[in-house]
This record gives sequence, C-alpha cells and structure tokens, in this order.
Amino acid sequence: MNLTVTDVRLTPILVADPPLLNTQGVHQPYTPRLIIEVVTADGTTGVGETYGDTKYLELARPLAERLTGRRVDDLNGLSALADEVAVDDSRVSGQVDVGGLRGVQTADKLRLSVVSGFEVACLDALGKCLGLPVHALLGGKVRDSVEYSAYLFYKWAGHPEGVPAEQDDWGAALDPAGIVEQARRLTERHGFTSFKLKGGVFPPDQEIAAVRALAAAFPGHPLRLDPNGAWSVATSLKVAEEIGDLLEYLEDPALGTPAMAEVAAATDVPLATNMCVTTFAEIREAFTRGAVQVVLSDHHYWGGLRSTQQLAAVCRTFGVGVSMHSNTHLGISLAAMTHVAATVPGLHHACDSHYPWQSEDVLTERLTFTGGRITVPDGPGLGVELDRDRLRPLHRRWLDDDGRLRERDDAAAMRVAEPGWRTPAVPRW
Amino acid sequence: MNLTVTDVRLTPILVADPPLLNTQGVHQPYTPRLIIEVVTADGTTGVGETYGDTKYLELARPLAERLTGRRVDDLNGLSALADEVAVDDSRVSGQVDVGGLRGVQTADKLRLSVVSGFEVACLDALGKCLGLPVHALLGGKVRDSVEYSAYLFYKWAGHPEGVPAEQDDWGAALDPAGIVEQARRLTERHGFTSFKLKGGVFPPDQEIAAVRALAAAFPGHPLRLDPNGAWSVATSLKVAEEIGDLLEYLEDPALGTPAMAEVAAATDVPLATNMCVTTFAEIREAFTRGAVQVVLSDHHYWGGLRSTQQLAAVCRTFGVGVSMHSNTHLGISLAAMTHVAATVPGLHHACDSHYPWQSEDVLTERLTFTGGRITVPDGPGLGVELDRDRLRPLHRRWLDDDGRLRERDDAAAMRVAEPGWRTPAVPRW
Ligand SMILES: [Mg+2]
Ligand SMILES: [Mg+2]
Repeated sequence: MNLTVTDVRLTPILVADPPLLNTQGVHQPYTPRLIIEVVTADGTTGVGETYGDTKYLELARPLAERLTGRRVDDLNGLSALADEVAVDDSRVSGQVDVGGLRGVQTADKLRLSVVSGFEVACLDALGKCLGLPVHALLGGKVRDSVEYSAYLFYKWAGHPEGVPAEQDDWGAALDPAGIVEQARRLTERHGFTSFKLKGGVFPPDQEIAAVRALAAAFPGHPLRLDPNGAWSVATSLKVAEEIGDLLEYLEDPALGTPAMAEVAAATDVPLATNMCVTTFAEIREAFTRGAVQVVLSDHHYWGGLRSTQQLAAVCRTFGVGVSMHSNTHLGISLAAMTHVAATVPGLHHACDSHYPWQSEDVLTERLTFTGGRITVPDGPGLGVELDRDRLRPLHRRWLDDDGRLRERDDAAAMRVAEPGWRTPAVPRW
Repeated sequence: MNLTVTDVRLTPILVADPPLLNTQGVHQPYTPRLIIEVVTADGTTGVGETYGDTKYLELARPLAERLTGRRVDDLNGLSALADEVAVDDSRVSGQVDVGGLRGVQTADKLRLSVVSGFEVACLDALGKCLGLPVHALLGGKVRDSVEYSAYLFYKWAGHPEGVPAEQDDWGAALDPAGIVEQARRLTERHGFTSFKLKGGVFPPDQEIAAVRALAAAFPGHPLRLDPNGAWSVATSLKVAEEIGDLLEYLEDPALGTPAMAEVAAATDVPLATNMCVTTFAEIREAFTRGAVQVVLSDHHYWGGLRSTQQLAAVCRTFGVGVSMHSNTHLGISLAAMTHVAATVPGLHHACDSHYPWQSEDVLTERLTFTGGRITVPDGPGLGVELDRDRLRPLHRRWLDDDGRLRERDDAAAMRVAEPGWRTPAVPRW
C-alpha cells in the first residue's frame, strides 16, 4: 500500500441547472463545478467535487501541484498546504457571494472551498486503499441512512427563450399552488417528509401564503422558509409571528449576525443560518449573542468533512443545532455529505440537497432517495464511481463556453430575462 | 483484515508513585491504573490506559463485554455504547475529585474517562491492522515532535516510614532551593526548557519565592504555577501582581468558573485550567465569561483522542489556547498524548507530563524525552509495545493489595504522616 499522491486531475465542468429563483436572481442554465481526482502510487483514484468558478480553479491548480508527492492520509497537512497558496485579491469581493448566497466572500473561504474538494478526494482514495468507507475514516456512522428535505423553489417553466439550456419537466412554480404541486412531485419521487422553500423571491405575504398552503397539504410535516436575508428585522418578526407555529425553523430571515440577533431576541421561532455563520471566525459573536439556533453546515465552504465534524462539535458545545446547507451539487458531494452526516451525533434536522434538481451527474449510478433518505454507502471510500463517459461531455461544455457561464452569477442570468435587473438592496422587504 | 473485536482484556495495576505533594495531600506510594487490551479477529492487539480506581473498573467491565463483537473502527459507536452502561451513583461525589484535582466528579466524566482508554486501544489496534500510526488516523501529524514541560513538585524524600513503597533518588524538595535543584535534574535528564510548579502546598509567599528562584536560575524560560484552586480571588490577584511578569500562565489559581472569571477580569496574566473546564458542558459559561485563556486538555477525562481534537477546535474557535494536563500515567498514555498533540494546530504551550516521575512502566521500551520533546512515533498504531513481564508484577501488586491502595486518595495518604489531615477547605489562602 503506497499512499503517496502521484497525480491530481482537475476537470472543470458545466452542469445543467433548472431556472430556480432566489432573491439575487435565477440559476444559470449551466453551473460550473470542479471534479477533482487524486491518484496514489498504487493506482487508486479518489474523487472530490467543489465549486468550479474561475477563482476556485485558480486556487485548485497550484494546490494540485503541491499535493503531488504528499500522502492522502496527511489531511491536516492539506489545510496548511492551502494556506501557502496565494489568493488573487481581485477575486474576493468582501460582499455577499453572487453565486450561492453563502455569506460574505473572503480569501479564507475561497481557500477552504477548494481544500474541501481535495479533502474529499483524499478521503475517498484513502478509504479505497484501506478497504474502509469514508464514514469509518471519520470515526464511524452513528446512523445507517441520512434524511434529506425536499428543497422547493419558485421556478420558471424554462430558461429565457433563445438561451441554450436543457429542458426540465417540472414546469413553473410561481404561486402557492405551484409550490404545493412541486412538493407533491418531489415527495412522490423521493419520499421526502420535510420541506424547505427558498424564499426572498416574492413579497413576504406571497411566501407566507405558500407556507400555509404547504402546511395544509402536508399537515404536521416540518417546514422551513429561507429568504436569504432579504427581510428587515421588522419583516422577519412579522413573518415569525404569522407562520412561526408552522415552521421547524426560519432560515436567514435577515442578513448578518446583528440583525439575526435582533430577530432571535424577539421571537421563539428558531433561526437557522448558512449566511451569518459560514466560518469558524464568525461563530463566537453569533453564539455569544444567541443570533442562531441552528447552523447549516456545508462541507464545501467549511473546509471539508473533518471541519464539518468540528463545527458540529462546537455547535453541540454551545447548545446550537446543526444541519446541512446545499448548493447546486452532484453525486460525489451528496455521497460526501451523507458520509459525514452519518457520523454527526444529534443531527436533528433533515439536510438540504439540490440533487433532485440535477438531471446530470458524473457517476456510473445515481444516488437515490428512499423515504427521503440516502443509505450511507458502506463500500470503500465514498462508495461511488466516476463515469468518464458522463464526465467528458460536461467538460466539453465547459471548454466550449465563451466564459460567460464559467462564473456563476444569478443576477446576470436574471438580466437575460429582465435587462434592468440588479441584485436587490438588502433588506428588500 | 477483520476489524471485529473478539476479546478485551482488563488488567488493573498499581504503579509506584513518589511522595509528590499537592493541596489535597500527597500521592500514595502506589497509584491504580487500568491497562486495556482490545484483540481483533485477526489477532491484532491494541492497548490503552486509564484511571484504575474501582469506580472505573466497575464501568470498564460491562463496556468490555459490550465492545466484543463490534469493530475497532466504530469509534463514534463506542461513545454511544458507554452511555448504555449504568454508573453507580454512590461512586459519584459531585465534589472535587479526591485523587487527581481534575474538577468536580460526575457520572458523565467517569464514563468518558473509561471510554478514553478503550478508544486509545481501538485506535492502536486499528492502526496496527491498517499499518498506519494513530496520528494518521487522526488526520496526520502537523509536527514531528511534541514539547513537554518539566513538572516540578514539592516532595518528601520518601513516603512515611513503615509504609511499603519504592524508593526514589530525587530527595526532598520543600523550599525554593529544592525546587530549583529538582528543575536542574529534570532538565539535565530530559532537556526540558519550560517549568510548571505544582503549588497550593505552602502559603503563597513561599511558592512565589520558588517561582522567583526558578526565574533567576532559568532566565527567560516559560514558568507556570498551579495551586489547584487553593487561593481566594484576592490572593490570586496578589500572586498575579507579584510574579505575573514571570509567568507564561497561572493555572487554576481559584476554584470554579465564577472565581476564575473574577481573577481574569482583573489581571492580564493568562489563566489556564484543568479544573473549571473539564467537560464540553462547562465550556459555554467559562468562555462566555472569559474565565480562562488556556484549556489544559486531557484525553483521559475528555473522552479520548478525537474528543481532544474537538476540544481544540472549540478552543480555536473562541480564541482560547490549548495545552495538555497530566495525572500519574504510564507510557501508553504518553504515546497517546503525543499522537493527538501532534495533530493539533496552534499548540502554543508545552504539555504537562508526570512520566518522568514514573520509575515503572509496562512497555518493552520507555519513551524518552530529547530536548524536552517526544518524537511522534510513526510505526503502526501507538508505536509502543506492551511488555507482559513488566505488566505481571504490577497486576500482582494490585491483586495483593487489601483494597486501601486501589482507590487513589491523596488526603488518606497524607493522613498516614499527619493523622489529623483533612482536605483543606477552599480557598485555603
Ligand atoms: Mg440558506
Ligand atoms: Mg492543573
């Protein structure tokens, strides 16, 4: 067994994405992702997946070079390695990320998002070398399957006319009836029993009506609403007052820790976040002020699966709940999310996943939800297999792109339909 | 490779301990420890070590039974397993532990102290099965050696006359000159460059004088003083005022988080603890109040090596330093401490270890300090080997004991010399 890395392959791809709406705009018809392959001296290949925009690629390339010659089990060293890679400051806005609503962009977060893909690839390779599943490398699963929630979106029937795009068969969902219909189909197909609505798209009253319609259609099922910080403190409290009793939690109603703390102080509805607590550095203030009751971890931007476990430990220590955020992702990341989620004690909320919205994948076999759950793979590594025949055309799509789709920008995608569109100032309502 | 546990061996032992003084009393001539061996289906044996008093043994036995048939890589499951084992309430005082000055005794802490020995044994077995060092199972070492400090004690030349005991060649150390002489010998033998004095034994002025003598003898070297909570807030502040500029940190000057917070608020001298923050449940209040600047982890009572990493992550998140506490222990635990310490980023203080005071061990080869450091073992597992010929007489000693030495009680040991001795009320000064 030789755990030395002899090769690292980076394959940027563009993945079909339906026209899902959020407060910043709409998903592009294709979203950039990066597939990372780490090859060891004895020919074992591990796979990872992360964001694929140019700024991530620019960091992934030097990191890939530095990883060669090191060992796949040197995971603590991997983080140190990433610290050595310089971030191009012009890539870091200091503003809320335009393509993912995951809080303010920083150089550190950029680094961690890249590291996470490498960490997953190293864990996959290590698991394959040792004959152990990734969850065993993380201390072992404490559950055999992981629960996910149905991720509901306001959406158009199709991307704007004239724009190259894949068709989806979900139709439009632009009102309460459309959201309930979407929820029904997601539930029929995947067996989900809890629901999250991505809000911040329409004025709060319309989204309140959608939540009420969901509650009527699925009585007693956990519901969540996430306007991505689009609301003022007053609006947040008004929504909490009106539908708080229907909600498992309210997700990022207002933007940033001070506003969230104000909301939290005035309502009993638990607040969740993947926007004001997105790094370890942001935890102290948020927890001390009681701004959030649930942190939605995301191994991509927290720096990997082991960081996710550490985040869970910090949350547990402070009596804060933990669950999982999701952005557009493929099966490699879903497998990674499932492995780490399986090891976290006290995961009391179903995880989010965009996966049901992704018609394309790079695996030989898609992961499937049964009763809203993914069975934790027990095969070596992540327990999934990369399909080169599926990877190739997605990479070809990336190569053929003139650069416009290579940077995810939901506002730019929205401007195709609404030329005057600008990311709304916050609070929007 | 078959990772299933087929046998667990528990060997309680009594280990020679010199007459080291602390605020509760004096170390017994022999201290109980428990050696844990976990055997896998393919005949691999992993070793662990923890406290050996009867209350730990009573928990270890049912846990050993339950572990049989499970896998050594199911470490998260191990903690859950321990939760199933009932703790005899009469064993839990709710008072400060009489035999170790590691804070208030609780059922949870008792469980975690037992689990830790099993976790280390499982990690050792797993590492041996996989051909990987324990540090690799913890994500990989970030340093090749771990620094330890010289642990200085006020001590008698020997145990009370008439008491069966091993002789030691350290002589007495009951004043500043004796402490400096002890520091010199420890440094000559092991190369330590930082010093910790166990205080709370003499009135503060005498211990202040000892620290000043150390500072004069070893100018510029990091010094620490640990009275185990024996002082009032006022006394703590007086000591901080007088010798704060000589100290790397002041360890548990006053007992409990409220008193520590009061001291911390009034001095710039960093405060360390292994008494007011000894479980995850105690962190929130202490960190929120700024009561401690350094947490001295101890994998024995925090629940193992992976819990220690989680503690370090929590500390890092809150800008609190981390280092390591030690109680009387043998080479298995020193190896375990070294492996986990090697993986913790930002370990800015030398760790404590009683090991130089232990003339006996159960390893084929003692671990050695070079320049005050232990080289991180890179062999499979912990990288140490149990010596049955050395284990046997120590177990025989335990079997032959009439029960008096099987429960460590520093106050009882003190009463042999001073019949009227009772654990002093706190604050003592
Ligand atoms: Mg969100
Ligand atoms: Mg101490």
